[in-house]
Amino acid sequence: MACNTLVDITKLSPKFQELYAKAKDFVENDCIPAEPVWHEQMGLGDQRWKVIPPVLEGLKKKARSLGLWNLFLGRDYQEGAGLTNLEYALIAELTGRCPHIAPEAMNCSAPDTGNMEVFAKYGSPAQKKKWLEPLLQGKIRSAFAMTEKRVASSDATNIETHIQKVGNEYVINGLKWWISGAGDPRCAVYLVMGKTDPNNKNPHRQQSIVIVPADTPGITVVRPMQVFGYDDAPEGHCEIIFKDVRVPAENMVLGEGRGFEIIQGRLGPGRIHHCMRSIGMAERGLDYMLARVTDPSRRTFGKYLYEHGTIVSDIAQSRMEIDQARFMVLNAAKRIDEVKAKGAMKEIGMAKAIVPKMLGTVLDRAIQAHGAGGLSQDFPLAKWYAGSRTLRFADGPDEVHIAQIGKVELRRANDVKATFEKRDKTSQELLKKQSKL
Amino acid sequence: MACNTLVDITKLSPKFQELYAKAKDFVENDCIPAEPVWHEQMGLGDQRWKVIPPVLEGLKKKARSLGLWNLFLGRDYQEGAGLTNLEYALIAELTGRCPHIAPEAMNCSAPDTGNMEVFAKYGSPAQKKKWLEPLLQGKIRSAFAMTEKRVASSDATNIETHIQKVGNEYVINGLKWWISGAGDPRCAVYLVMGKTDPNNKNPHRQQSIVIVPADTPGITVVRPMQVFGYDDAPEGHCEIIFKDVRVPAENMVLGEGRGFEIIQGRLGPGRIHHCMRSIGMAERGLDYMLARVTDPSRRTFGKYLYEHGTIVSDIAQSRMEIDQARFMVLNAAKRIDEVKAKGAMKEIGMAKAIVPKMLGTVLDRAIQAHGAGGLSQDFPLAKWYAGSRTLRFADGPDEVHIAQIGKVELRRANDVKATFEKRDKTSQELLKKQSKL
Amino acid sequence: MACNTLVDITKLSPKFQELYAKAKDFVENDCIPAEPVWHEQMGLGDQRWKVIPPVLEGLKKKARSLGLWNLFLGRDYQEGAGLTNLEYALIAELTGRCPHIAPEAMNCSAPDTGNMEVFAKYGSPAQKKKWLEPLLQGKIRSAFAMTEKRVASSDATNIETHIQKVGNEYVINGLKWWISGAGDPRCAVYLVMGKTDPNNKNPHRQQSIVIVPADTPGITVVRPMQVFGYDDAPEGHCEIIFKDVRVPAENMVLGEGRGFEIIQGRLGPGRIHHCMRSIGMAERGLDYMLARVTDPSRRTFGKYLYEHGTIVSDIAQSRMEIDQARFMVLNAAKRIDEVKAKGAMKEIGMAKAIVPKMLGTVLDRAIQAHGAGGLSQDFPLAKWYAGSRTLRFADGPDEVHIAQIGKVELRRANDVKATFEKRDKTSQELLKKQSKL
Amino acid sequence: MACNTLVDITKLSPKFQELYAKAKDFVENDCIPAEPVWHEQMGLGDQRWKVIPPVLEGLKKKARSLGLWNLFLGRDYQEGAGLTNLEYALIAELTGRCPHIAPEAMNCSAPDTGNMEVFAKYGSPAQKKKWLEPLLQGKIRSAFAMTEKRVASSDATNIETHIQKVGNEYVINGLKWWISGAGDPRCAVYLVMGKTDPNNKNPHRQQSIVIVPADTPGITVVRPMQVFGYDDAPEGHCEIIFKDVRVPAENMVLGEGRGFEIIQGRLGPGRIHHCMRSIGMAERGLDYMLARVTDPSRRTFGKYLYEHGTIVSDIAQSRMEIDQARFMVLNAAKRIDEVKAKGAMKEIGMAKAIVPKMLGTVLDRAIQAHGAGGLSQDFPLAKWYAGSRTLRFADGPDEVHIAQIGKVELRRANDVKATFEKRDKTSQELLKKQSKL
Repeated sequence: MACNTLVDITKLSPKFQELYAKAKDFVENDCIPAEPVWHEQMGLGDQRWKVIPPVLEGLKKKARSLGLWNLFLGRDYQEGAGLTNLEYALIAELTGRCPHIAPEAMNCSAPDTGNMEVFAKYGSPAQKKKWLEPLLQGKIRSAFAMTEKRVASSDATNIETHIQKVGNEYVINGLKWWISGAGDPRCAVYLVMGKTDPNNKNPHRQQSIVIVPADTPGITVVRPMQVFGYDDAPEGHCEIIFKDVRVPAENMVLGEGRGFEIIQGRLGPGRIHHCMRSIGMAERGLDYMLARVTDPSRRTFGKYLYEHGTIVSDIAQSRMEIDQARFMVLNAAKRIDEVKAKGAMKEIGMAKAIVPKMLGTVLDRAIQAHGAGGLSQDFPLAKWYAGSRTLRFADGPDEVHIAQIGKVELRRANDVKATFEKRDKTSQELLKKQSKL
Repeated sequence: MACNTLVDITKLSPKFQELYAKAKDFVENDCIPAEPVWHEQMGLGDQRWKVIPPVLEGLKKKARSLGLWNLFLGRDYQEGAGLTNLEYALIAELTGRCPHIAPEAMNCSAPDTGNMEVFAKYGSPAQKKKWLEPLLQGKIRSAFAMTEKRVASSDATNIETHIQKVGNEYVINGLKWWISGAGDPRCAVYLVMGKTDPNNKNPHRQQSIVIVPADTPGITVVRPMQVFGYDDAPEGHCEIIFKDVRVPAENMVLGEGRGFEIIQGRLGPGRIHHCMRSIGMAERGLDYMLARVTDPSRRTFGKYLYEHGTIVSDIAQSRMEIDQARFMVLNAAKRIDEVKAKGAMKEIGMAKAIVPKMLGTVLDRAIQAHGAGGLSQDFPLAKWYAGSRTLRFADGPDEVHIAQIGKVELRRANDVKATFEKRDKTSQELLKKQSKL
Repeated sequence: MACNTLVDITKLSPKFQELYAKAKDFVENDCIPAEPVWHEQMGLGDQRWKVIPPVLEGLKKKARSLGLWNLFLGRDYQEGAGLTNLEYALIAELTGRCPHIAPEAMNCSAPDTGNMEVFAKYGSPAQKKKWLEPLLQGKIRSAFAMTEKRVASSDATNIETHIQKVGNEYVINGLKWWISGAGDPRCAVYLVMGKTDPNNKNPHRQQSIVIVPADTPGITVVRPMQVFGYDDAPEGHCEIIFKDVRVPAENMVLGEGRGFEIIQGRLGPGRIHHCMRSIGMAERGLDYMLARVTDPSRRTFGKYLYEHGTIVSDIAQSRMEIDQARFMVLNAAKRIDEVKAKGAMKEIGMAKAIVPKMLGTVLDRAIQAHGAGGLSQDFPLAKWYAGSRTLRFADGPDEVHIAQIGKVELRRANDVKATFEKRDKTSQELLKKQSKL
Repeated sequence: MACNTLVDITKLSPKFQELYAKAKDFVENDCIPAEPVWHEQMGLGDQRWKVIPPVLEGLKKKARSLGLWNLFLGRDYQEGAGLTNLEYALIAELTGRCPHIAPEAMNCSAPDTGNMEVFAKYGSPAQKKKWLEPLLQGKIRSAFAMTEKRVASSDATNIETHIQKVGNEYVINGLKWWISGAGDPRCAVYLVMGKTDPNNKNPHRQQSIVIVPADTPGITVVRPMQVFGYDDAPEGHCEIIFKDVRVPAENMVLGEGRGFEIIQGRLGPGRIHHCMRSIGMAERGLDYMLARVTDPSRRTFGKYLYEHGTIVSDIAQSRMEIDQARFMVLNAAKRIDEVKAKGAMKEIGMAKAIVPKMLGTVLDRAIQAHGAGGLSQDFPLAKWYAGSRTLRFADGPDEVHIAQIGKVELRRANDVKATFEKRDKTSQELLKKQSKL
């Protein structure tokens, strides 16, 4: 079992403990058992893009009645549940154990969470009324259209989509892909990142974000992108053409040229939520492994699987890696509580660099213990692995985070060298003094 | 570029060199450019299980006319092309560069190759005439039904499928899965492994293999298993129920109780073919990576991708890992030529333990360099990764091979200790003698 | 800089914060600058076994006057400083930054700490008076003689040393090695583990521990063992022959047959101290690396070292590995505070399995950045590496801890499987119910 | 046992096979048993710098009489033994099994080998007569003084040592360290690298190499550098001050400004020799591991060591890593035979990047299996580990080789992209044609 005495849930507020217990019970006894129903109701083939499994709506109703709703919105937002980031992180680990159902059932699923934060933080009253309210009620879903096909858009200065003011409207032209959630029949609105001022000398003032209703003419959802062979219906990660798409000027968020500022504000806590859900997924992956390697029907050559080779060591490594990673995420969450996301960039970056890789490794070991079955639709392991793999690029590839962490460390070098010099001087004096004795 | 002076193609027979050059040209200039056509002709959805892309039949014709046909069958078989295992291994690297088309175009694709070997080696003249001939002509395809759903069938003594003699027939009952190729509309025949004598005291004499035409009543193909999200249509890896399936007694291969012997004979060279194709896949994966990291449109923050972080090191590691792995496979192939597969089990096991993991690592690095696109249908990398992942269980999981290699090494321990003792004695004498001087 | 918000020193008691600040100042500004003096006063050759560098005695005096003395003895001991394990762990990180001087200067160095715990916990009043008092005052030093040369004594049932009651005395015969501290001229006493009752059916009641003054006749210190090329003078890790060594019967600790119980009680917190000192060493190793890679005189081919290859990534990895490892140790320390060492065996085992390997890796990267100099006597890196390497066996090899952690996890398997079954049942019911709708 | 069918010794010339068998017998039955004698005759303390163990001179005599002498000098040198690089590489693996005795016994030990190559290749007849002859006869030893203390001298343009022409003499001033062999009482001559023309615009024409007799006034051997704690007496790796050291003008090698050219020519084959000796050391390390883990006296908890944890897997990994690495070295050796060292830089670089790390890993596993004893003077493992660690900087750090290999691969990128484009065009045409059908 996970070892986590440093963050002791029994020392947190009784109110949170009660909420946590309810969330745990809901995930374990309502959401996880609903997984096979969800798959059955989803069906096969093209209809998967049209059907929302009824079981999910039931779970949403139940979650809302239990007060397990919109917990991601912290105390900074008046609409929020008042949880600290540390507290919500602990909840996110629970929902991560049932990643395709629990987060949505509790209205805490990406990309809606980040989008709701954008509306809550930067939206005008009218924008909030029109889009934030139904999102908070789980009536519609949303997408965030940033990534572009033809350029390396993780560097936002490369964005090619144009957002041009024409009269009292903005006209949008661009080619986006990997737009998560855009395939969902309930997806009603996109937040679209593009350039309103591509020639601005300040490369971080060129971008803006506009609200685009999903049914606006000129939008073509070309295809869902696949991840390993998964299309992740019904949400999907879609390729979308915006051709002369027109929206009223009041759909601009915060103001022209403030797109970069908005995405900066959007990323921090979301990364931590992803990370904590990944911890939950890793724990459940390890559970699957434990069950498999002790399954009497899987004995070979007279031995249980766990008696072969390096399985016990693999289990121990997974336990240690999960526990270490969890500390890094909880530390980052607590740090956000203390100094806001901007002050916690290093802690967030470390969690982001560590967790997706850890999750992949833990799941890969679990898969190996399951044999080919572990890669198949009969277990969720391969699908989760695919998800974990995307997290190694999402919100910046591992390499970027690692380089950033390294640079932050390197900033200490001058202080370190000054200390070395000071010490050397003290040592020299000491040597002289002692040799006189 | 790959460094391989130890196996210098220019020193092999001129006849082979000519064949190799033809194969290389065919793969590079015919097969690889045909990939998009193959995908287009395959289409989407259920029809993928019914259509064989016409482009493939054209390539088969061309390959046959070029003499690039059935090259896998070595000089031990009268039907064979006369290549050594070392030579065929070099060809297999080429076909591995285009793994979904080239092997089949040259009638060298699994599982047909292994099945043809079984027919050629163990089949009666009538069995050969009926099944081997059309297989050698590429007219039908075949499957090998060994893996079972409910037990750990990699230990053949766990097999539960029954093959019962009733009168002049065998009656087969069992539940198989991961039967590769069984989804193909051209798949005409299964080789089915089951127990004819489950109570035989010798656990390796209980099993038999019978020939079962695919259209025999009582066979139900339940579903294709997925690997990650891929169903690998049209071949597929299928779950199949055999319920009171009846075949004439002459369909027994080699004789009752000889199933274990047959699968032992089937495995060696096939593993090496898989491994060499994997080398080819890894090389092409590295090619994709090189193209991507030098792509000017993928520059971020003013730098080419290869100028960021650890990319150059990743490329170097991939080059070194591929080259090392290739030597291990070629060494095993040459060893088979010298002492047959049975004598080369250690070399084969080492290649098998090294190559799939290496391929996964090399492809994972290439994927990382491509960002999310690398996981999608727009590049073959994720699909190949999925294939590489199955190879870590297929024909025995990594753990089994590694344990086996370790055991073979441990057999040397007594000799080593005897040498140590002898040396200690010599040292003691020497010490005495020298101290007298 | 290290990120550690989960254990926030500014939230601990003001008294501890004051102590911590004093300890930090003492280590950084007194102990570390004294290192070159210590080496100079130690000198070279055989005299190193005879001389205790005077600088050390000065530091001891200062530490004592500052109240930085015997801090390792927690609130369970009346002689103790009243620190929790968590608090002392934070102090131990500081002393680990100067591992050859600071722990001894503060009378907190192994093996004396563990031995003082044994005396304090299990000693008779007379034993305490005779040995614990001078140890607590830093007047003498001590050794713990457990490891044996001819057997795998990490399994205490293999111990071969005999302790025989003859009249009113115990007679000890045995061959020990790796007895740390036995080379020190101030080492006045050994705690010797041996068998008083080798035929006892309970293999954990055969062992006893007796107090043996270092000057008892029959003791021969054969040689210091080397670690890599270091002999670690003046303490040393010695091979010792006990031949008919006689001590009075009252030198038995706790009672015959209770040796196993004593070593069990001795190990837990000591492992954590080692681990936290290792964290401090790793931090200082990383400091050396930062200084080196930004040193203008080490530029090659026009670039700083940190601009080459994978150095920045190496630095980031070191930072992340140190921070993760620290959390594991602090978590174990806090767990000991809550449930005693016995209840925290899993947490302790995980810290023990993670930290020494992490330390070796971090130091190895720092060495690589220093080139050959990093392996030499001009930097402490290689010597610390050697120390870190011994920690991978000391108090049980990594393999034992990892296997133990794996086994603890495996104990969860039955619960996991029961949960799976319960869930499957719920799912089945849900499926039925939903399909009726 | 090692698997190496690709380079089959039984297919090499009968003359070489005979030599190989003699060398094997000599190493195994003469050199290895002499190790304890060598250590005993060496003694302890300072005398180790003065004594050459007599046992060594006996072995040299025997080796010479057997024709096992100066085998490193290939067919390019008239003084050479006529072995190919591939053949000598196989011999070097044998001598690497006894690294402190066998190479010197066969007059094939570094740094003399490289120095003899310099004399043979670039020396004047007088220089050859004076220095090469006694070196070839094993009467004197030599050192190569390149590395400097104050700068990153692996980039030769950073060299600070001055070599100034004054009249008919060169005057040398500089501070060198890590000068291997300079501690040996038989070391008679240094090849000193310095700058004769520090302002030459071509940074590779500034350096020269002069011959400096070891007894020239102005030379001070300051101290031996330690590697971990080893000083490697009697050879040593010394810090040396050159102060106004004067040698006659005819001591210039090849000509002023040609120093860079000489070191370039010196490096290639030497790296391969180091690598192959490392293979031999790794094999013997694995032998020690096999003996230990099957030693009945080391059983713990009722099991042999090899029955615990991941030991069998560790052994298998070591076997596979050694065999892979050997192929890389032999491939590089063969490549040198075919196209000279300059044409084989990539193959040499790959071997150099792979082998030292592999050796460290294999030895580290063997050490772990031995417990603390494995780090001590009772086994050679820790000392070899220390040696392997220096090889990760010697002749260029790993990072430099890896970056170089990566760059060579990247050169292929344009070809790869051109091929991709050509293929895409073919595919487009094919798609058009097929869709017309």
